[in-house]
This record gives sequence, structure tokens and C-alpha cells, in this order.
Amino acid sequence: MAHITLPDGLPGIRGPMAFRPETARPINELVDILLQGPHTLSRGERELIATFVSEQNDCRYCQTIHGAIAAYHLHGDEQLVVKVKSDPQGAPISDKLKALLTIAGKTAESGKAVTPEDIARARAHGATDLEIHDAVLIAAVFCMCNRYVDGLATWAPDDPDFYRQRAALVAQNGYAASTLQGTDPERR
Amino acid sequence: MAHITLPDGLPGIRGPMAFRPETARPINELVDILLQGPHTLSRGERELIATFVSEQNDCRYCQTIHGAIAAYHLHGDEQLVVKVKSDPQGAPISDKLKALLTIAGKTAESGKAVTPEDIARARAHGATDLEIHDAVLIAAVFCMCNRYVDGLATWAPDDPDFYRQRAALVAQNGYAASTLQGTDPERR
Repeated sequence: MAHITLPDGLPGIRGPMAFRPETARPINELVDILLQGPHTLSRGERELIATFVSEQNDCRYCQTIHGAIAAYHLHGDEQLVVKVKSDPQGAPISDKLKALLTIAGKTAESGKAVTPEDIARARAHGATDLEIHDAVLIAAVFCMCNRYVDGLATWAPDDPDFYRQRAALVAQNGYAASTLQGTDPERR
Repeated sequence: MAHITLPDGLPGIRGPMAFRPETARPINELVDILLQGPHTLSRGERELIATFVSEQNDCRYCQTIHGAIAAYHLHGDEQLVVKVKSDPQGAPISDKLKALLTIAGKTAESGKAVTPEDIARARAHGATDLEIHDAVLIAAVFCMCNRYVDGLATWAPDDPDFYRQRAALVAQNGYAASTLQGTDPERR
């Protein structure tokens, strides 16, 4: 049971977002820009960063929904998502993304854990300032979302199909639009 | 030196915010709603939560600027801010705020660290669902901001007067407006 009284039937972050729509709006806008906006990193790559950080923070709802969205963008490759979560440096992804995942993981641990060597490694594999900035900010944003979800003790569905269906909706419509649509039970 | 090339002269979060104004906008909007919007918790109390969490995350820029803004709202009582950072449960603040600071501190550690007993204690001292929600979300937001600031290795001024002057500007005009004004060197 959640620590406060939240609207029925909305899992994870969507309960508190419906409880406090004023703050939900800028959070969704921020996540839409970072994960779905035009970028040199693919949507799948950015969702993998969000998923990896959420796994590191042990947030079941966030790692499962963002893992499902990552898989949606990666031609349904759920095994790749599992591999990135457990062993990013051994996963079949680019060296640049591996370096950005290291930066994101250290940001989640503590911003100060990111070293000049971590940055130099990312640059050596072609990462731009914007890509490094966004890897740090995506990690920071999910350190927020994970704590928001778990600090209020929200619930998370068990059925993987729930996340797959929701992932398709979010991937197609974006975070802000899907949150609004989520208030219609038929679109949940 | 910051990990990426940021605009000159802007300390802490303001460097990356000027580098990426698209993401700065929703972050500032979120912080304005939480810390400066109408609320049953005073602005000073909410800034104390932000300051305490930033201290717990060892983010020098955030704990100093938000501590200065808290003091501005608390009739200039900088000693109270120092006390809350080092010993919140022994500080001369309300029992409700002490309970909310416990929730915020645990949220910063890990959302899952918040217990039903922590929530019950806050309720026993009169905390509402919205106040509990916002204590969790303020803590989560500063877990983001602290990591954004330190994950990019931004710089922080040493002079306490810098923070006092900036605090007055932010307290009077809000975060979003002060960020825009901050691009004019005379208003920094």
C-alpha cells in the first residue's frame, strides 16, 4: 500500500503524478525532451541509460517500464535489455554507449564519482559534450524518478505484458501525452 | 574544470542550464512549484528540506545556495540552517518538519528506506498527504540536481556573500526568472 492515498489503478510514478498534476507536467516534459526528443543517441540507447540507472537504484517499476520501452525501440530485443542491466560492458552495444553507461552509473552513485578518465573514455569513442551532458542528466532524472516511485511505496504490476503494452503507447505518443491518456481506463 | 565546455562565469547548476536551456526550463518550473508555489509549508521550511538533502548528498553548490535562500526566508537566521544540516532532530523547528526531514533524508538514501513508521510519525505531527508527497518529491528533485551539478564537475564560488546576494534575487523572483536574469552579468 502506498504511503499516501493515491488514485486507484495507476501503477508506479503514475499514481503520484495523478495526485499532483502540477509537478507531473514539468517532469514529463523533461523526460520527453531527454528520452524522445531529436538526438544523436537513439531512443533505444537513451532508454537503456534510464533502465540501467533504474536497475542500479533497484526501482522495479522504472526499470521494467523503461526496459520495455527500450526493447520496443530495439526491435523487441528484450534479451539485450537484460544483458545491459546485468553486464553493460559485455553487452553487444557501441563502445560509446558503454562509456556513457559508466558515466550514468557513477552519476547515480554520486555525481562526484564521475572521473576525468570516464569522460576521456567517452570522448575517445566519439561522445559529444551534449551526449555526455545528457547521459549525466538522464541518470540524475532517474535518480529522482526512482526515489519518487519508491519513496511513496507505489505498486508495480507483475505481468510483463502490462509493461509491453504500456511501452508501445509511450513510445508512440510520448510521456506527457501518455500520462493524460492514462486517466482513461481504456488506454491504461 | 567542468567535464564539458560550459558558458563562462555561471556557477553550479547554472552552467549546464545555460548549456541546455530546453531541459533547464522544466527543471526550473518544477523547483518553482515545489519551493516557491503556494503551500502549507513555508518557503523557509521547503528550502530547509532542499538544503538538508543537498548536504546529505555532499553537493556544496546546492546546499550553500539553498541554505542561503532558506536563511533569507527565515529572517536571516543562518545558524538555524547550519543546525538543521548537522542535527535536524535537535534543531528548533516544528516536530512536523523534523518528521518530514527524516522522510526526505531516507528518500535521498533510497526511496525504499522510508518506512510506514516514518510516515505515521509525520502524520502524528499533523503532516498531510500533500506535505508528505512534497517532502519525498523535493528530496527526489534535489537528488537529481545534486547529481547534475557534481556529475558534470561544475564549480562553486567560495564567497558566502555571493550566495547571499543570489539568494535574495531567487527568493524575490523565483528560479525560472532568476535563471534568465542570470544571463545578464549585472544580475549574477
